[in-house]
Parts: sequence; C-alpha cells; structure tokens
Amino acid sequence: MNKNDIAVIMAGGSSTLLKSANSPVLAKVLGQPMIQSVTEAALLSGIERLAIIVPSGDTQIRSLIKKEFPDADIEFFEQSVPLGTAHAVLAAQESIEAVKDGNVLILNGDTPFIDASTINSAYVLHTAMQNDATVITATVTKPFGYGRILRDANEHFSGIVEEADADSSTKKITEISSGTYWFKSDVLLNALHNLSPRANGHFNLVDVISNVIRSGMKADTFFAPNSDIILGANDRIQLMELNEYAKMQTIQYHLSAGVEIPYSDGVVIEKGVQIGTDTCILPGTIIKGKTVIGKNCVIGPNSVIEDSVIGDNVKLNQTQCEQCIVKSGANIGPFVHIRPNSVIGDSVHLGNFVEVKNSNIDTGTKVSHLTYVGDSDVGKRVNFGCGTVTVNYSGKAKYRTTIGDDVFIGCNTNLVAPVTVGNGAYTAAGSTITEDVPEDSLGIARARQVNKIGWKVKK
Amino acid sequence: MNKNDIAVIMAGGSSTLLKSANSPVLAKVLGQPMIQSVTEAALLSGIERLAIIVPSGDTQIRSLIKKEFPDADIEFFEQSVPLGTAHAVLAAQESIEAVKDGNVLILNGDTPFIDASTINSAYVLHTAMQNDATVITATVTKPFGYGRILRDANEHFSGIVEEADADSSTKKITEISSGTYWFKSDVLLNALHNLSPRANGHFNLVDVISNVIRSGMKADTFFAPNSDIILGANDRIQLMELNEYAKMQTIQYHLSAGVEIPYSDGVVIEKGVQIGTDTCILPGTIIKGKTVIGKNCVIGPNSVIEDSVIGDNVKLNQTQCEQCIVKSGANIGPFVHIRPNSVIGDSVHLGNFVEVKNSNIDTGTKVSHLTYVGDSDVGKRVNFGCGTVTVNYSGKAKYRTTIGDDVFIGCNTNLVAPVTVGNGAYTAAGSTITEDVPEDSLGIARARQVNKIGWKVKK
Amino acid sequence: MNKNDIAVIMAGGSSTLLKSANSPVLAKVLGQPMIQSVTEAALLSGIERLAIIVPSGDTQIRSLIKKEFPDADIEFFEQSVPLGTAHAVLAAQESIEAVKDGNVLILNGDTPFIDASTINSAYVLHTAMQNDATVITATVTKPFGYGRILRDANEHFSGIVEEADADSSTKKITEISSGTYWFKSDVLLNALHNLSPRANGHFNLVDVISNVIRSGMKADTFFAPNSDIILGANDRIQLMELNEYAKMQTIQYHLSAGVEIPYSDGVVIEKGVQIGTDTCILPGTIIKGKTVIGKNCVIGPNSVIEDSVIGDNVKLNQTQCEQCIVKSGANIGPFVHIRPNSVIGDSVHLGNFVEVKNSNIDTGTKVSHLTYVGDSDVGKRVNFGCGTVTVNYSGKAKYRTTIGDDVFIGCNTNLVAPVTVGNGAYTAAGSTITEDVPEDSLGIARARQVNKIGWKVKK
Repeated sequence: MNKNDIAVIMAGGSSTLLKSANSPVLAKVLGQPMIQSVTEAALLSGIERLAIIVPSGDTQIRSLIKKEFPDADIEFFEQSVPLGTAHAVLAAQESIEAVKDGNVLILNGDTPFIDASTINSAYVLHTAMQNDATVITATVTKPFGYGRILRDANEHFSGIVEEADADSSTKKITEISSGTYWFKSDVLLNALHNLSPRANGHFNLVDVISNVIRSGMKADTFFAPNSDIILGANDRIQLMELNEYAKMQTIQYHLSAGVEIPYSDGVVIEKGVQIGTDTCILPGTIIKGKTVIGKNCVIGPNSVIEDSVIGDNVKLNQTQCEQCIVKSGANIGPFVHIRPNSVIGDSVHLGNFVEVKNSNIDTGTKVSHLTYVGDSDVGKRVNFGCGTVTVNYSGKAKYRTTIGDDVFIGCNTNLVAPVTVGNGAYTAAGSTITEDVPEDSLGIARARQVNKIGWKVKK
Repeated sequence: MNKNDIAVIMAGGSSTLLKSANSPVLAKVLGQPMIQSVTEAALLSGIERLAIIVPSGDTQIRSLIKKEFPDADIEFFEQSVPLGTAHAVLAAQESIEAVKDGNVLILNGDTPFIDASTINSAYVLHTAMQNDATVITATVTKPFGYGRILRDANEHFSGIVEEADADSSTKKITEISSGTYWFKSDVLLNALHNLSPRANGHFNLVDVISNVIRSGMKADTFFAPNSDIILGANDRIQLMELNEYAKMQTIQYHLSAGVEIPYSDGVVIEKGVQIGTDTCILPGTIIKGKTVIGKNCVIGPNSVIEDSVIGDNVKLNQTQCEQCIVKSGANIGPFVHIRPNSVIGDSVHLGNFVEVKNSNIDTGTKVSHLTYVGDSDVGKRVNFGCGTVTVNYSGKAKYRTTIGDDVFIGCNTNLVAPVTVGNGAYTAAGSTITEDVPEDSLGIARARQVNKIGWKVKK
Repeated sequence: MNKNDIAVIMAGGSSTLLKSANSPVLAKVLGQPMIQSVTEAALLSGIERLAIIVPSGDTQIRSLIKKEFPDADIEFFEQSVPLGTAHAVLAAQESIEAVKDGNVLILNGDTPFIDASTINSAYVLHTAMQNDATVITATVTKPFGYGRILRDANEHFSGIVEEADADSSTKKITEISSGTYWFKSDVLLNALHNLSPRANGHFNLVDVISNVIRSGMKADTFFAPNSDIILGANDRIQLMELNEYAKMQTIQYHLSAGVEIPYSDGVVIEKGVQIGTDTCILPGTIIKGKTVIGKNCVIGPNSVIEDSVIGDNVKLNQTQCEQCIVKSGANIGPFVHIRPNSVIGDSVHLGNFVEVKNSNIDTGTKVSHLTYVGDSDVGKRVNFGCGTVTVNYSGKAKYRTTIGDDVFIGCNTNLVAPVTVGNGAYTAAGSTITEDVPEDSLGIARARQVNKIGWKVKK
C-alpha cells in the first residue's frame, strides 16, 4: 500500500431484510458489528485512508467507527438515495479524487470475514500486473445469488453475470465475485462518470467491470483461497448461521492451540481472546473482548469473561467478570461477579455469592460467602466472614475501605467507609464498624444477648 | 364448523415405549404436553365439542385439560382395554350419537404439531365434496411405520395399507395417512358397529376406511401441505428430536420477525412467547409460557423467563423470573430471582444476588446487592444498601413493608414488617428497624463501636 | 481369564499432537481420563494383572491409576525412548515373563471406548481356537490412518498393512486393526526378541503379527461388533468430537431408560450416573461421578451435580452440589451451592443464594434466602430468616451449630458456634447469638431503635 490508496466501504444499505431498526452492517458476528470487522481488516492491510458510505442520517455507524478506530483517517459519506453500488461509491468521489494516481479498494460492510491477507495479496497482483481493475473471486458450492465469473477459451476473465441475468449454464459456474475489487482510482472515477443506468435506474459496479473490459483496459481476477471472505447474511437466519460458523472456527482455533474444550455447547470465544494450553473451557461460557487467559485454568461452566486478564491455574466457576485482573491460582466461584477495576491476587478465594467492584484483594485472601467488597484495598491472608459488606456509599459519595494483612472480619460485619482495619486486627461478628480498628485490635459494636426464657409459651 | 361437529382425541395409549409412569400424550414438546397442543388446535379450529379417550383410571389427562381449557365442552371416555383405534373411538359413542347429522374429527393425542389451519382446510374439502370420510395425508421422505395411501390409475384414493401389510412396492409410497380423519358421524357410527376384528382381535380405523370405500361411499384424502402435522414420538429419543425440531422452528420464527439470536445453544422459546425487534437472546436462555418481551432488550445468558411481561431496553442477565412485570430500561442481574406478583419499574436496577417477591419497586430504584425484597411497596429513586432484608414473616403471618420515595436504606438493615419508611428517610447501616421511620428522618438501631486495643496479642 | 493372563496398556506416548503438557492418555472423554477408562475395561473383563507402559519420568499416570484402582495389581514400566509399539511392550518383559504359559492382552491407553465385553469375547475366541495371536478388528467407514486387514481367497486373515505401506486398493479396505491384540505370552515374548527394526529404527506390533503368520503359527482376527472400541483422538478437535459423541451416547442411554431430556444442549451425563424414570434433565446441566438421581425429579437448568445421591421428586434449579445427599421432595434453588458432607432432608427448601456445607438439615426445614449453613445440625421444620449466618470459624478452629426442631431463626442472625438453639426457640432479627438459646425461648441481641427526626434536613 501507499499513501495514494484508499478503501471505500459500502455500508449504506437498509435493514429491511433483517427487520431491524439499525443498519445491517451493525449486525454482530461473534460479538462484533460486521462494519467493524471490515474496517479493521482494511486498516490491518495497511490502507491508511478509508471512506465509508453510510445511510442518510446515520449516527450509529459513525459513532461506532470513531470510537473503535479513533486515530484512523476515515471519512463518511451519505448515500442520499439507494441507486446501486456504483452510485454508492460515487458518494465518496471527493475522497477518491484526492488519490487520483492511486488505487481504490471497494469493500462490503457486511462481509465480516474479509481479511487483511486477502486484501494484500489481491493488491500485490493488482499492482504487479498493472491491472485497471481486479475482482476478488472465490469458489463456492452454492453460488446462488452471487455474480458468476465468466472466462474465455483461454481462461481469461471476461465478465461477471449477475444471478438475475444468468442463463442455466451460467448459473452452474461456481467461481463467483466477492463484490470486493481493486481499481486504479482514475479508471474507477472515469467509469463511474460514464456509467449508464440499468432499466431500474440503478448504477452497478458489475457494469463498471464490463465497461473496463469492453474498453480494452486490463481487468483480471484474484482468486481468494479463503472463500469465507464472501460470507454475508441476507436475513437473521443466515446471520445466526454466520455466528455459529464463526463460533466453531474460533473453537477449532483454540483446540488446535492446545486448549481443552470438551463440548462446544454454549462456548463462545470472541476473536481477540488469548487462552493458554491445557486450560479447559466448560459449556455455557462466553469469553469476550481482549481477554487473556493463562494455562491450566478451568473456566466455566456458565461463565462470562470480558476484557479481563486471568493468570495460570485459575478456576472460574459460574462467574461473571469484566475488566478485571485475576492472578494465578485464584479459585473463584460458584456464583461470583467481579466488576471493573478489580485486581484479584494470587491464590485468592472468592466464592458463593460474592461481588467485588473496583477493589484490590491481595494474595491468599478468602472471601467465601455472601459478601460485597467495593472500593476497597484488602491485604494478604485476610479472612472475610460471611455477609460482610463494605459500606462504600453514603448516599452522596463513595469512599474506600482499607484492610491490612492477616485481618479477620467477622460475619455480617459492616465496614462503613472511609475506614481502615489495621494489620492483624479483628472485627466481631455482627458489628457495624464506623471507626478505624488499630493493628491487632478487636473492633466490636453489638448488643449483648438476652434470652427471654419460655417466651414462645407466654406469647 | 357447526354445532354438530365434534372432535374425538385418542389419548388412551400407554407409555411402554417412553418407559414412563405417565401417559405418552402427557409427554412435553417445547414445554407443552402433547395432548394440550392437540386439544388447543381442535378448539382453535372452531370445534366446540370434544371427546377425549383416556386410559382407564386416568386422572392426569383430565385434570390437565380441565385446568388449561376450563370453559371448553370436553367429555372424557375411558378405553377399558386397548383393542385398537376403532375400538377407542367407540368409547365416545355417546358423544358421537349426539351429533348424528354432523361430522367427527379423529385426532391423535400425540401429534403435537397438528394445527387449526389443516383441520379447517380438510373440513372445507370434506363438507364441500360431501365426503363420507376424508383422510388427512402428507408426504414424507421416511414413510416407514405409517399407513401408505393407495391410489388407482386415475389417482383416486383407493385405500390405506399399514406397514405390516405392505409389500415392497407399497412400502416405497411416500404419501402416508396422518391418522387424522373427518367422518360423517352417522357413517362413522355405522361403520364402527359393523366392523370385524383383525386376527389379533383389534378394531382399527384403517379398516373403517376400507369398509367405507368397499361399500361405495365417498372416501377421499386431504393433502396437508405442512407434513409436520404427522410428527409424533415412539420413544424418548424421537421425543428429544421433536423437541429440538420445535426449538429450532420457534427460533427461526423469531429470527424472521427481527429478533437477534446469535447462537441457538440452549435457547428455548416456547410457542406463545412474543419478542420485539432487535432484542437479543443469549445462549442458555429459556423463555416460557405467555411471556411478552419488548424491543432492544438483552435477555440472557443463562436466564429463565416465565409468564412475564418485559418492557423495552431491558437487560436480564443470568436472571430467573416468573409471573412478573419488568418495565422499560430496567437493568437486572447478574444472579437475580424475581418471583411472582412483582412489578419492577422503569430503569430500576436489581443486581448481584437479589431476590424480589410479591413487591412493587418504582422507577429508578436501585437494589444492587445481596438483598431480599418481599411483600414490599417501594417508591422511586430508593437506594437499598447491600444486605437489606425485608423481614416479612413473623413465624405466623406475612406483613408488608412500605418505603417512600428517595429513601436511603443502609447496608445490612432489617426492615421488620409491618413497617413504613417515609419519603426521604434514612436508615443506618446494621440497624434492625422495627418502628416506622418518619419522612426525612434517620432510623438507627445499633450499638456503638468499641476497640479492644491489642486484643489479638492478649488473646 | 485366569491368573496367567495379563494386560499391557500402552500409555507411553507424548502430547505433541494435543499440544498439552500432559500425556495424551490423561486427556478426558466425558470427564474421565482415557487411561482410566481403558484400565477399568481391562479390570472389568476379569484380568487381574496389568502392566502400564508410561512415559519416562511419569508421575501423573501412576498417581491417577493408583488413586482410582488402589487394590488392583498394576505395575508401571517406562519406555525410555519412543521406538515403536513392540519396543514399548518389551518394556513390560518382566511382567510378561511371569505369565509364560498364559496370554497377553495389548491395549491402547487412548481408546476410551474399549469395553470388557469385547475383550472377553476376543479372549474366548483366542483360547478356544488356540490362536497364537488374535487381532481385534472392526469395520469403519473412514479407514484412513488405520492398519487394513488383509484376507486371502478363503477369507482367512493374512496380514495387516499400515496406512503408509498401503497401495490404493488396500486403502479401500474398511476392516481395520484396532491395535488391540491377544497373544500367547511365550509367542509374544519370542517374537519381540526376534523382531527386526524398520527403516526408521522402530519396532512395531504389526510386524510381530506378520512374523507370527510367516512362521506358520496361528493368527486370526476377532471382529468387534462395536466399532467404537477403536475410536481415539489424534488432536484436540478429534478429542472434542469423541466427547460430543460420548455425550450423545449417554444421553440416548438415559432416554431409552425413561429419563426425560427435552434438549441435548449443554447436557453432560458422565458414565457412572444413574437416573430414575420421568426425571427431567434441563439444558446446561452437568452430572458427574457416581451420582444417583431418583424418579420424577427436575434437574437444571444450568446445574452441576457431582458424586451425590438425590431422592425422588427433587427439584434442583440452577444449583451446584457435590458429595451430598438430597432426600425426596426437596426443592432446591435457584442459585444454591451444597458442599460436601451435607444431608438435605425430605421436603427441605433451599433457595435463592444459599450455601450449605458439612451440615445435616432435617425434614421440612426452609432456608429461603441469602444464608450460609456450615458445620451445622439442623432439626425439622426450622425456618431460617434471610441473611442467617452460622459463624463456624473463629479464625483458629471450626465449630458446630446445633438447632432443634421447630426453631425460628430471625433474619440477619449470626449464630456464633459452638452454640445450640433449643427446640421451639426463636432468635430476634439482627441478633448475634453467642450463647445457647433454651427451648421455646427467645434469644435477642440488638440495640433499640431511635429515630432522629428531620435528620436529613439538618444534615
């Protein structure tokens, strides 16, 4: 790639087929909006400028792309009326004109498996052979609906025939156009300006290719070895198929890398996730975002891990966690929720209805039951009694709780923040601790027991 | 249909094949006993009188049907000994005689996909053509086990041959009898009374059809375009296949209607459920009964929703709820159980080990952790501290808790019902509130903290 | 079998293909390491002596087998360098020599579906026909990778050809060697000592068979009707396929026995589990180990049951339990964890964020919300208030809590063990009970409520 190359991503379609209020390119495959996958592939291929054709009045695509790729050079153009693919590209005329001596890549915003490698290999062919236009093609077993690739007696590329225009022998051709193209930018601009509309008033890129061939310019094909790049969804049933296909692909990727996944049921691993060898992923487990998991862990069943870093030998049983760090040897679950900005130290145990939020819990601490640790800094080897609550919210502001090493927190203790419990200190069960407890001391705040003998009978 | 038409549902079989203590027609497909689906289809078709043939001594089928269709005109007849399908129908002789100038529909209690549309279309043909008997047929790829439809050189219906009686060419016929029939009632009664038993002593409806044809009366077929209507289960493996088939059918129905279901794993949506567009159903989620879910929700993973009404933009994460209302914008979970007779207001947050029962929780209230709200009426914008318990049971009776707007309940508070906390009031963490707290006041009930300095060392 | 028969199990391979740090025979199928399944099959067939060939330096296989089969007569031999299957068997020379007039069974440690019935039937043939060597064979649709069975014009066994040595017509043979053999022990020893290495320096059992045939001794085949016995995994993708196959096999086994499993999604039932008729297993449920479940239960969704005994009519909803007993009519969940050494009595209710550990809970007791019962003996018809904690750990030792019959424990009560609450006694909500409460008495330990009127405004 060089500075004069640009990608134009077609994302102007409407969601009639998906019956959605949102653009179809925002439909997710394996947790990621399709337009994001396509944009990512273009950027990873080395293209530095992008133009995205969005529906009239779009805010959602723009805000997604700006959020995900804040530093990329991306311009947005609206397609005022839907008059075909060539008409859509023309919306980006201004951006294409800026790279007049370069090349234009046309991508579809709803083909989530397009990848940088295919884009690059096609570019190498396109530029090395000095093609005016290069169509990326693939071979599929079910070509229905795709433009078929025509070849002459010498196997030279001689045109694309759309489904509607194909006769029965043409329909049998299994090499199809992916709808992804490289053009010399001046060739493309010139062709777009001279294109005649079809009977329905539409301007289509297939006709641009025909014109290039007819005018004697050089059009050729790049055959994509990975036919997944053409996959898209025309309705939500196909969209589920794409998702289930992508789900199995990442499962097989991790199996091949040494991860143990005994059953695929309900296991969803998003694309960017890393998992160490001999880690076992149990059914019903969804692993999302930029999560990194170490070796020899047992994750699941029925867990959700998002954007978290998990060490080695960690057990996460029936646990949800997001944006947290869980260090090696931690034993978490069942029924635990670790919320953002939490660091769970080595060999910590959290289990049985425990929630942690925005807290640091150091090595070897145990939080075994029915406890909420929020906005807290907790030392090593602390034992939390069952039912402990860090009272972090006064109704107006949030405050932190600080607990030293080797502290023993009694059951059903309230720690009213801001408060500090010193190293080696104890709190008595059932106490509401509102003042600091010094090191090695006992904080107690409860009434003495009275037995009303025979109370039941009297009552 | 008119007042003289009646449906006879065959539900007298035993469960040898399913190895169950219960009748096979009580086996569930997509959460509904098969006999219930068949009865529902008959009633939806407009038939006003039903006779159900049940096993000798049955109470389960009777009580199910009476509970589900309390207002329907349904009589039950026992088949004393199992002597074939015609013998079973004869058990309902009394009901059939009451409609002597009408028509009788014979249905099987274990074909859960029979539908009102097929019944009605067959009825239209049956009556318009003045047939004496009309067999509902379908074409299947695997006809094994079904009665095959014979046709003469003019393609006229000429008989049914059962599997056991079929020669090899007959076995190849793929048009089969569904075992569902329309008869003129007098024709049926007459035929039943004059039927000869088979070698094994059984009286079969197939032979009734033969007799009708042989005696020169008019027997014809109605071809059901939806071959699902014949599906049944001879064993539990087939029953699981029926369930998984029905599960995929409803998933595809909702996908086609604009619901997002990225993966089908563990997603079970029962037949009567309604879901709005762009709502996403995540894996491991079971939606049952008469549930209605709005638009743009995220439901699941690993949730169970039963007979509930959910608004728009609701999040239900790892939540179980039944017979409740959750209004728009509510953010529920993970790990929440909402029990019957609860109304969760707009934008309420329930999360992290929270149970709600028989309570109203108004707009914007937050119940964030480890809390039980039972038999309570809670106002707007209330903040529940972690570990709050509404003490609704005295050991003898249940009482209600009333909480006004803008109340702040401290952590680990007991609210001993009956009790009222006024608008804007506070309760201190760790308090057991036994008396009403007036508006804007603070209720506190706890001992003062004492620190026993150096207690650990002394101990 | 007699005392002079021995099985040699090949478990010396390395995990290059599985990309694991552990031996491939430790990979699990349906929760059980493959070497354990193979060892179990050998022992169940009646063989009393086993030799297992392990990798150099192994500790994991040894410790697993010793733990699972503590009383079996099993010797371990290390294969110092991997020089082929015959070389591996020779490592056990010492054990084989001890049974010189007996027979040797060669088993592969990574074929988890080998069964005692196949081993025994092959043995009967092997000894009855006085074979010198007997190859267990099977027919498969995809023979690729397996040794093909050659037969002469009279259909007599004439050799095994490995994949690498097979020509195109041999490759089409679908009868394959399972790699499991019976040998007369002296024949085997003699053949092993006289075996020539292959070009790559390896000594293979296939060549032992060739030598036996060539030398005119009697080699024949035993055709295994169950071709599953040959199944193994060369990589983790195949390992997942084995798991999913085994998962469906046990599901179908239980369906055939009268268990209701409406959907297979996420349902994993390990091999030794027993389940009564009409019990329903819902999606996302894993049942492990030696679990026994009674009749008419509803188990799941999303539950994990391990090594537990469950009575009849039990409901386990979204529950994890291990090594516990749950008696008939108990209603458990959602969100419950029952830990080892717990006995949950008839008709007990545990539900909504309840953990039980090392406790006995007697008939009809209710623990309805947010409670931890640990190290406790609880009587009949006790009502636990929400938020009850048995304070079983002093920071130094664990103590037991004893609760009589018909006790009413108030909400958010701490029971500081060792402590006894007598029959019919009450504790007041919010009390920390440190001393015994006599029968029919009320234990109370809390401060009186004070309302600070207008506190919010002043503040």
